[in-house]
Amino acid sequence: MARPYYIGVDMGGTNIRCAAVSAQGRVLMMKRAPANAHAAADAVTANIVARVAELERAAGERGWGRARAIGVAVPGPLDLRTGVVLAAPHVAAWRSFPLKRRLERRLGPRVVLENDANAWALGEFWRGAARGRRDVVLITLGTGVGGGLIVNGHIVHGRRGGAGELGHMTVNPDGPRCDCGSHGCLESYASASGLRTLVVSRLRKRPAKLPRKYLDDGGDFSVRRLYRSARAGDPVARWAFSTAGRYLGVAIASLLNIFNPELVVLGGGVSGALAFMRAPMMAEVRARSFSAVAAQCRIVRAGLGREAGVVGAAYAAMHSRRSS
Amino acid sequence: MARPYYIGVDMGGTNIRCAAVSAQGRVLMMKRAPANAHAAADAVTANIVARVAELERAAGERGWGRARAIGVAVPGPLDLRTGVVLAAPHVAAWRSFPLKRRLERRLGPRVVLENDANAWALGEFWRGAARGRRDVVLITLGTGVGGGLIVNGHIVHGRRGGAGELGHMTVNPDGPRCDCGSHGCLESYASASGLRTLVVSRLRKRPAKLPRKYLDDGGDFSVRRLYRSARAGDPVARWAFSTAGRYLGVAIASLLNIFNPELVVLGGGVSGALAFMRAPMMAEVRARSFSAVAAQCRIVRAGLGREAGVVGAAYAAMHSRRSS
Repeated sequence: MARPYYIGVDMGGTNIRCAAVSAQGRVLMMKRAPANAHAAADAVTANIVARVAELERAAGERGWGRARAIGVAVPGPLDLRTGVVLAAPHVAAWRSFPLKRRLERRLGPRVVLENDANAWALGEFWRGAARGRRDVVLITLGTGVGGGLIVNGHIVHGRRGGAGELGHMTVNPDGPRCDCGSHGCLESYASASGLRTLVVSRLRKRPAKLPRKYLDDGGDFSVRRLYRSARAGDPVARWAFSTAGRYLGVAIASLLNIFNPELVVLGGGVSGALAFMRAPMMAEVRARSFSAVAAQCRIVRAGLGREAGVVGAAYAAMHSRRSS
Repeated sequence: MARPYYIGVDMGGTNIRCAAVSAQGRVLMMKRAPANAHAAADAVTANIVARVAELERAAGERGWGRARAIGVAVPGPLDLRTGVVLAAPHVAAWRSFPLKRRLERRLGPRVVLENDANAWALGEFWRGAARGRRDVVLITLGTGVGGGLIVNGHIVHGRRGGAGELGHMTVNPDGPRCDCGSHGCLESYASASGLRTLVVSRLRKRPAKLPRKYLDDGGDFSVRRLYRSARAGDPVARWAFSTAGRYLGVAIASLLNIFNPELVVLGGGVSGALAFMRAPMMAEVRARSFSAVAAQCRIVRAGLGREAGVVGAAYAAMHSRRSS
């Protein structure tokens, strides 16, 4: 029997996740496949189309019919008005790439793009930690720092979908250089790459290579290892998380004064180390935000994990469909 | 003949402005009177009621009937849900004061409160520099720094009306102490009081008193005089505006990355000195905001002057009325 569902696609640097989601936000079916992010622009696109087709076929076999709309969460700045990906950090070939048009050529006029951090935020809003709330600031602390803003129950897109880049608020104008070219962005402290820079700068007098306790098996910097070191009492690891927490608190305080939210949701891998960031973070929040506004807000961990992106992408698709 | 109109009240520290505003945002009649802000809580309230009654009487004589709704712009944090003024910097007696209830007791159930900076922003949005726009950040640089946020055509209130405190974004975590108790807020640089602190700190080695060229006739610090000194080439005045401009640029860059607005509107007395702030401001905006987002945004001066507050208060009244 036909069953209304939406497809959410989350295009990461390594994997592409693709899910059939019910109108109530339940994940009915989910598939994961390599993203092939280093391939040519059209090959990456064809991979998305193939994954969607595969999912729709499986849904068809169960008699659910076609997806009503398809939401695609894309990393990196995009222009929602034109459906053009301006630059995607993990997909080198997508520069000023008309992704929406290319996808619609194969999938029909039911494709909706969304920034990946916004999709994550929408997932948490629909089915996760921010369920039932109206005014929420969501910050994802991963390789970089992204975010999504829910104001009065709607995601904030701004003029063309560029809103929500919370990782690039300045928290210290004379701080370290950020990958975006600026200095002292939140991301340059509270992301995996920011933590790495903090550790490297702290150990400057030691050999250029980081101690093995901060590295994963491949020899790359690892937030999980840093966290383990912090738990074991390592002072450098504790200092790094404490510094990240301090600047995260500076950013959250500004966001409280700007938005008067009822909830701040923290997600992403680095948020797993919140235990070592919370005290300095809260000290800044208390010192810098209006007390009435701080009293009206709770700061919590995200609830959904990795499926937030596909759920939020499906939400974006469903709502865009409804309003058109 | 009856004519639909709304009353907008702008409660300042010195004066209270009160206007009859048409449904199209035209000021039909405006009156100004002393605010009596130092009187007891109920006396200040009674003064507002008297001014509104006076205006309504004059409107009645012209056959316009009663105002459909009355918007009151109030300085300082307030709780929009309960209609309680938490603290008003210029009205000492209003602390946790149930202003809405007290006004409605005399004026009937048609009173709408709004934060004064939000009212100013709504005035600029309805009839001023931001007319016809959907996504706008408005910053008023006065004695303090306030702001208003228009997202997708609506003012951002947050959970209880505390949103838009753009003056209390941290732009330099180790910066000077702000009146709010925090350090390095935008207000501690780009307001009249911030400029005063900058000048005092710069002249630390000179006598405690500021040179007369920075003072008004009453002997108080004057942004107008500081501006005149800057025009005459005074290096301290130029440095102060340049520093204010730098941190204003840091804040605007963060706001562009957060909101992707199409317009930033700058108002208030300090914005009259924009000529001396613009270059350092724009340098920070360019260095710190995403280029696509910066390219989509213009930064302009406010359009309405002192009547923005009453116009915006009337707008808030009109729209609250419509949605109830």
